[in-house]
Amino acid sequence: MRFVLVAGATETAGIEGISAAGANRAAMVHTPSADAEILVYGAPVSSSLVPVSPAGCPTPAVVTRAVRESVGFPVTVLDAGLARPTAAPTVALAGPPGGDVRDPVPVPNATEVFETARTLGERLPEDRIVIGETIPGGTTTAMGVLAALGEREVVSSSLAENPLSLKREVVEGGLAASDLERGECAGDPIRAVERMGDPVLAGVVGLAVGALDSGTAVTLGGGTQMVAAAALVRHAGIETQLSLSTTSFVAADVDLDPVVESLDVSLSVTDPEFATANHESMGRYTRGEAKEGVGMGGALTEYAGSGGSFPELHDRIVTVYDRLFR
Amino acid sequence: MRFVLVAGATETAGIEGISAAGANRAAMVHTPSADAEILVYGAPVSSSLVPVSPAGCPTPAVVTRAVRESVGFPVTVLDAGLARPTAAPTVALAGPPGGDVRDPVPVPNATEVFETARTLGERLPEDRIVIGETIPGGTTTAMGVLAALGEREVVSSSLAENPLSLKREVVEGGLAASDLERGECAGDPIRAVERMGDPVLAGVVGLAVGALDSGTAVTLGGGTQMVAAAALVRHAGIETQLSLSTTSFVAADVDLDPVVESLDVSLSVTDPEFATANHESMGRYTRGEAKEGVGMGGALTEYAGSGGSFPELHDRIVTVYDRLFR
Repeated sequence: MRFVLVAGATETAGIEGISAAGANRAAMVHTPSADAEILVYGAPVSSSLVPVSPAGCPTPAVVTRAVRESVGFPVTVLDAGLARPTAAPTVALAGPPGGDVRDPVPVPNATEVFETARTLGERLPEDRIVIGETIPGGTTTAMGVLAALGEREVVSSSLAENPLSLKREVVEGGLAASDLERGECAGDPIRAVERMGDPVLAGVVGLAVGALDSGTAVTLGGGTQMVAAAALVRHAGIETQLSLSTTSFVAADVDLDPVVESLDVSLSVTDPEFATANHESMGRYTRGEAKEGVGMGGALTEYAGSGGSFPELHDRIVTVYDRLFR
Repeated sequence: MRFVLVAGATETAGIEGISAAGANRAAMVHTPSADAEILVYGAPVSSSLVPVSPAGCPTPAVVTRAVRESVGFPVTVLDAGLARPTAAPTVALAGPPGGDVRDPVPVPNATEVFETARTLGERLPEDRIVIGETIPGGTTTAMGVLAALGEREVVSSSLAENPLSLKREVVEGGLAASDLERGECAGDPIRAVERMGDPVLAGVVGLAVGALDSGTAVTLGGGTQMVAAAALVRHAGIETQLSLSTTSFVAADVDLDPVVESLDVSLSVTDPEFATANHESMGRYTRGEAKEGVGMGGALTEYAGSGGSFPELHDRIVTVYDRLFR
């Protein structure tokens, strides 16, 4: 198994109140670059900035890294439009961060990102990959893509209170700016991403399509952004087995069953038992913050599958957390 | 321990007869990109091209990868002017491949490459790093740098018959084109690289200086290119403990003792006992081909230090070799 993190940015994250993937909007642009470093090195390297939510919830990269330190798996990071440099090694897909979803064409290079990722996905030697993402604002662009495809617009949020009416308003603005009706991009996933998505979705879907085409099993590790990715894979005409692994925090926030059933995706939900840990690194998750990201759900499924005990994982999470905030 | 591979290119490799790091000069430009993929993924990914010498000796990346599969260590690849894209994740240092050492200024961006690598070296969280290199033509630029610094010009070769008189002629041409006397760059390592080196040396030395400055132990894994890197570190005024780990093939080719003594470098030489393996993947090394590269000597020292047995390593090398050439 190889874990592939697709990291990037969208100007959509700059909309006030849309994302909690950073202490504030200025800090948020650094989150994906820092997440990649935490996953690869165990701590941020380019700066001492550790991504936290405005309320202080640490990035899910802490959890994914803790799993990685426990069970061990190789990581590749794909740069799908990072807004800031990262000291983590990356494979460059193409181009700059995505524009605001309310722009007519927020991802003009969607085809190039998709194709570069597809080629890599075809050629990766592993039998199985788990794909994660890090992109603040990504649930809103996911909602935009689901609308463009005409799929159920279920989305979760990194905020404890999902700003759903704001997201709906932003998506309506995006559809109008892109001159799109709901469902108009059905069967044309690249156009859906180009008009309503973000470059990370283009990378995730390209990678998944290439991998599946070459017989590599794919697990999408994440929440509703990965639901949008799964929908894009299906609209690309790929009908093979596809898995989605997410956290119990996402599953508690949105009802995933109807959408995964209609997309014929195998769903795995893992509860990391953070409520029993009684530590500040995990407490805010139990109150509904963050929920997912950086492949956290995928990593937790691997952990559970390896037979690991959650109390031991909690200790490891505390170790990683202390390293970051010492 | 983290293994850092600095990968790049120099037009010096295009000089007929100077390097065996590729089946021919056209194939050679792909070698560093493919080496990075073999180290990271266990096989080339971007193309099916496996680097071999003109006589068919497989790249030392096979050996380093086999050690990695046996003992396990994290890898970061730095792109110091790769001539071809690689599917391996890389941290970009700066700029394009280096020019021909016979140009007046073959590495105009030496300062930028050095500084980017130095910052990374300072910030890496590990207690210890092993640095390897892959750059065809690198022993010639190493000789050029040693001449510019006024150090002993001992260099090995990837060819069984070291084309020393050709290298000397090329270095003389380089000194003349750069308007340099021997030793004129003493105390000015960046100028030595800029005028007579290659971008990989700039990256290796920047990384080593940054790491040593921040208290991280550094092992240079390689042959005479790493001797040049050690000389550059010393000419940067760094006097702390520095280790060089190489193969018995390099040690059999050149007498390293005087130079490592004068540079105050701890030398470790490992004999991987390929003569007892009796397999085509290793046989050409025993006849003096390849000798080093992709941190092979550093990897072998790690392997020996972990208590691994060489017959077991031979089996693993055969496994990697069969995967590449099947």
